[in-house]
Amino acid sequence: MSFVYKADPSRGAMWAKLFAQHAPDIPFKLWPDIGDPAQVRYLAAWQPPDDPARALPNLEVLFSTGAGIDQFDLSSIPGHVPIVRMIEPGIVEGMIEYVTHGVLTIHRDFLDYASQQQAAKWHELTVRPAASCRVGVLGLGMLGKAVLERLRLFGYPCAGWSRSEHSIEGVDCYAGEQGLDAFLARTDVLVCLLPLTPATRQMLDARLLGKLPRGASLIQTGRGPHLVQADLLRLLDEGHLRYALLDVTTPEPLPSDHPLWTHPRVRITPHIASATRPETAVESVLENLRRHRQGLPMIGEIDRGRGY
Amino acid sequence: MSFVYKADPSRGAMWAKLFAQHAPDIPFKLWPDIGDPAQVRYLAAWQPPDDPARALPNLEVLFSTGAGIDQFDLSSIPGHVPIVRMIEPGIVEGMIEYVTHGVLTIHRDFLDYASQQQAAKWHELTVRPAASCRVGVLGLGMLGKAVLERLRLFGYPCAGWSRSEHSIEGVDCYAGEQGLDAFLARTDVLVCLLPLTPATRQMLDARLLGKLPRGASLIQTGRGPHLVQADLLRLLDEGHLRYALLDVTTPEPLPSDHPLWTHPRVRITPHIASATRPETAVESVLENLRRHRQGLPMIGEIDRGRGY
Repeated sequence: MSFVYKADPSRGAMWAKLFAQHAPDIPFKLWPDIGDPAQVRYLAAWQPPDDPARALPNLEVLFSTGAGIDQFDLSSIPGHVPIVRMIEPGIVEGMIEYVTHGVLTIHRDFLDYASQQQAAKWHELTVRPAASCRVGVLGLGMLGKAVLERLRLFGYPCAGWSRSEHSIEGVDCYAGEQGLDAFLARTDVLVCLLPLTPATRQMLDARLLGKLPRGASLIQTGRGPHLVQADLLRLLDEGHLRYALLDVTTPEPLPSDHPLWTHPRVRITPHIASATRPETAVESVLENLRRHRQGLPMIGEIDRGRGY
Repeated sequence: MSFVYKADPSRGAMWAKLFAQHAPDIPFKLWPDIGDPAQVRYLAAWQPPDDPARALPNLEVLFSTGAGIDQFDLSSIPGHVPIVRMIEPGIVEGMIEYVTHGVLTIHRDFLDYASQQQAAKWHELTVRPAASCRVGVLGLGMLGKAVLERLRLFGYPCAGWSRSEHSIEGVDCYAGEQGLDAFLARTDVLVCLLPLTPATRQMLDARLLGKLPRGASLIQTGRGPHLVQADLLRLLDEGHLRYALLDVTTPEPLPSDHPLWTHPRVRITPHIASATRPETAVESVLENLRRHRQGLPMIGEIDRGRGY
């Protein structure tokens, strides 16, 4: 029996060390040095190998090293192999940090002040109260909920939208197609934390973004393909949208001649909003291995029908 | 009897409206149209008139429209006139927003990413956990305490320093000269929220900033004269300090040819971290007027000996 890690090698070295400390009984292998493929029962991967059924014939569980599993080709993974996304506090904390910074950046005009500094211009803009900056989060999974809980403390009027009904204290929850327009109409800063599925691919298009009030902004912390980038650029240029903070793009890395890089009201970060932290990720995986051996459901097992 | 407002005229118009709504019995005047100076009992001012004893001979209370009173020449204000600084939730919320944004900016490398964007460079920096970014706040008044309380939620190891002893849950409190070096040695992001007094003027000099660990950063949300700007520039250029986010400068406005404007690791905002919000400020002043009439101590009365 062995456990294989197949993702960023420098983080892999940290995983190896943590496995040696906390689970010395589990043979841990770093891709591509996996020894006998027939021995591999568990795989933690950002991208599984091609044709996993043939490459790892006795695979029992596939763990994603990221919060999502949209990078997996689900059809290539044998139906009896459960797929588990990463649920661990490091990812959540990072996302809270990123989105809180983004909302404050927009609400408190920090991008305007950065432009003013370039012109050596000392000009005070009116401080608007947080109560005037309505935040709306698309996606009410673990990340969306955690982000909203933190933003509420700042006094932002908070709402969330999801396919299914939710109830979160202090947050106006909207659900389904019929709730989307009302959610968008009351949202000044839209945060995307949706899973990427066929239903959410290209969802952030001119039609949806056009339903935000004029002057609204976007914080894109989902996946690149959620957003129709050409539509975003047009809405920014028409003045319908004020700012876009993008942590994910299509493609990644964004080519150096892409117009998003130089748009004065776009900020780009290279998919760093949140990263799995080896310390807490290994803890979470070990807990799931215990559960799997005991026949209990694992935390973060995905539903292949929904795709998340 | 009348109440005079002498500060920013556009906010003054909002004060006038709020007084008319909430205290129609109090004659409210906007400087310079104050009617009979002998009738003026209360003054809310950013800068009192020259020689207030002669200009307003029957003044009973002087309210600052800001969180500090360092802009007042205390020696010109008759000893029997209590001086009250502004304590109201709007100022506190604004400061929490500004400092939280600043700490996240430094901790999560957002200034590095802004530089990378200018070069159309997609390069992921390691996400460091909040636990590795030790925040220290100089000044444990209302603002310092409120800021620390919010930052704790993000997992930053938090400390505070003050002249006098304090005890704040979850915050390592240091006090007095003898506590300062240890406080600085454990601080990666130093936040200045001190009152400006003769004892704190020029306190942030090369000697003090040099005791921060190499690579530390400064968030200056106190008053311009706390900081020796030439020392800051030198420590940044020597690489001892990483970033400085300055909301206050000497002088204000900062002249357009000042080297701070163009330093690549300095961000400047024009004294906007936090502003008195008329709605809550008028509430606070009216409460203090009630207290004054009943002979109770007012909230925010300053101690002329300490200067805050």
